[in-house]
Amino acid sequence: MNKLLIVGTVAFDAIETPFGKTDKILGGAGTYIGLSASHFNLESAIVSVVGDDFPQEYLDLLTDRNIDISGLEIVKGGKTFFWSGLYHNDLNSRDTLATELNVLADFQPKVPQKFKTADVVMLGNLHPLVQISVLDQMDVKPKLVVLDTMNFWMDCALPELMEVIKRVDVITINDEEARQLSGEYSLVKAAAKIHAMGPEYVVIKKGEHGALLFHDHKIFFAPALPLEEVFDPTGAGDTFAGGFAGYITQSENISFENMKNAIIYGSNLASFCVERFGTERMVHLEKDEVIARLQQFKSLTQFDIEI
Amino acid sequence: MNKLLIVGTVAFDAIETPFGKTDKILGGAGTYIGLSASHFNLESAIVSVVGDDFPQEYLDLLTDRNIDISGLEIVKGGKTFFWSGLYHNDLNSRDTLATELNVLADFQPKVPQKFKTADVVMLGNLHPLVQISVLDQMDVKPKLVVLDTMNFWMDCALPELMEVIKRVDVITINDEEARQLSGEYSLVKAAAKIHAMGPEYVVIKKGEHGALLFHDHKIFFAPALPLEEVFDPTGAGDTFAGGFAGYITQSENISFENMKNAIIYGSNLASFCVERFGTERMVHLEKDEVIARLQQFKSLTQFDIEI
Repeated sequence: MNKLLIVGTVAFDAIETPFGKTDKILGGAGTYIGLSASHFNLESAIVSVVGDDFPQEYLDLLTDRNIDISGLEIVKGGKTFFWSGLYHNDLNSRDTLATELNVLADFQPKVPQKFKTADVVMLGNLHPLVQISVLDQMDVKPKLVVLDTMNFWMDCALPELMEVIKRVDVITINDEEARQLSGEYSLVKAAAKIHAMGPEYVVIKKGEHGALLFHDHKIFFAPALPLEEVFDPTGAGDTFAGGFAGYITQSENISFENMKNAIIYGSNLASFCVERFGTERMVHLEKDEVIARLQQFKSLTQFDIEI
Repeated sequence: MNKLLIVGTVAFDAIETPFGKTDKILGGAGTYIGLSASHFNLESAIVSVVGDDFPQEYLDLLTDRNIDISGLEIVKGGKTFFWSGLYHNDLNSRDTLATELNVLADFQPKVPQKFKTADVVMLGNLHPLVQISVLDQMDVKPKLVVLDTMNFWMDCALPELMEVIKRVDVITINDEEARQLSGEYSLVKAAAKIHAMGPEYVVIKKGEHGALLFHDHKIFFAPALPLEEVFDPTGAGDTFAGGFAGYITQSENISFENMKNAIIYGSNLASFCVERFGTERMVHLEKDEVIARLQQFKSLTQFDIEI
């Protein structure tokens, strides 16, 4: 089985949306990526850090899905990273109410020996220096390195971010972040500039408006599935990235044609994520539900015009 | 050849975008619909009204494309409808600077005898009573009636608008207007409510984010083509509607499967419209350009996952 190495936060989230509000629940980019990638036939590991306030039940939830957590450091007496956010009425914007780095402040990632030869590395949203450290620990060059990041690092650690961007094959980023990073409003132009920074493949996530994959002069688009109700967008971007990386890992094929399928899988899995609070939907998601929804993606997008 | 009857404004527009500004140029929903539909193998007519300030050159431009203008009334001593708009930096919002109804204020549409048996009727954005009058003049029930409208009529003539909505097969409307008309934020729920108002098919236009076709419990999505530059969005929605109606008229097939192709054609033609000011691009658009871009739409959206 191919190996996927994931680095990203494992955290507590407290979320408020127009539909309700949660106490501290399981969250974090690494968690969402791991749960999403667990739908594929692969071996995965999460490199991250939590405090000893992190419940065994959440650790079990990860290991139950065959996610290796030997690289998930548990800091004695430490407190787990905590994020709290409030979504506005349209769910397209949110305010961050609290960010407590806690054990994340001094995090030094340690890649488990077995995963130093991972086929695919998924660098979830974290400080660029942590992402670079993970790449430096690899024994062999991975077939594919995927980077997810956010505007926060563009504001606070741009030189380090540019270093990691240089070293990855795929970057996933949202539309506003792509505009910020490139200084271009047109996403076609933005992707071209980001491509010149290093990544051969640029994936621009547009939330409810889908995702674009750019490579060379080729473009592919995956819509978001139109849903009756979106309950909580938290983790949708990470779930998308996890589906993308998981599918590529399983299929061992890094062609543009296969990446099309990967972003459809990413969109598919993300469409479940937003249906419940936090990880609730992902934790109970069954394989046949994913397959049925793939069929919906086909019906949604496939047409037959003779040219 | 099948017949398409178009009703909609034929007008002067003055447009300002971040890229420049025009004097009074050719515009109007009927004009854009007619130019777009002229790319198909059909007979079309525009029912509208202008003043005698409307240049012969513009009339010739329509007749050169085999558009019947015997239903385009020219009011002696009258002034042509004039609209002026200023687009903001992102081109997604605009301010209306001037709306001079002029001859449109007392417009009584007259459908040419030959088009009282049209196969398809495209009711472009106009007062709902004008749209109803056109339907009332038909000698035989058209195979398909398509309605385009806007928020202005929801604000000022809602009862009359509801009357015309009841009588059409397809409504095309933008996302904000769908939300206003239905009172639902989710476009899936909005489409269901609008469907219950009469139209069997609901098309929701999302501008640069593409268009959704709803029918029964089925959904199809056509993306907008990602472009390096959007120059002027004026007329894109009408061009989309004209491509949709034109393709349906030519193909004589009002199945859901065929409507998928129709909204791809609509998106295709609209993607050209925004590349230049006003009708400039549409006036010089060649058949082989449209075909080449269809191939781009295929590459953009078609994938091959075995399920």
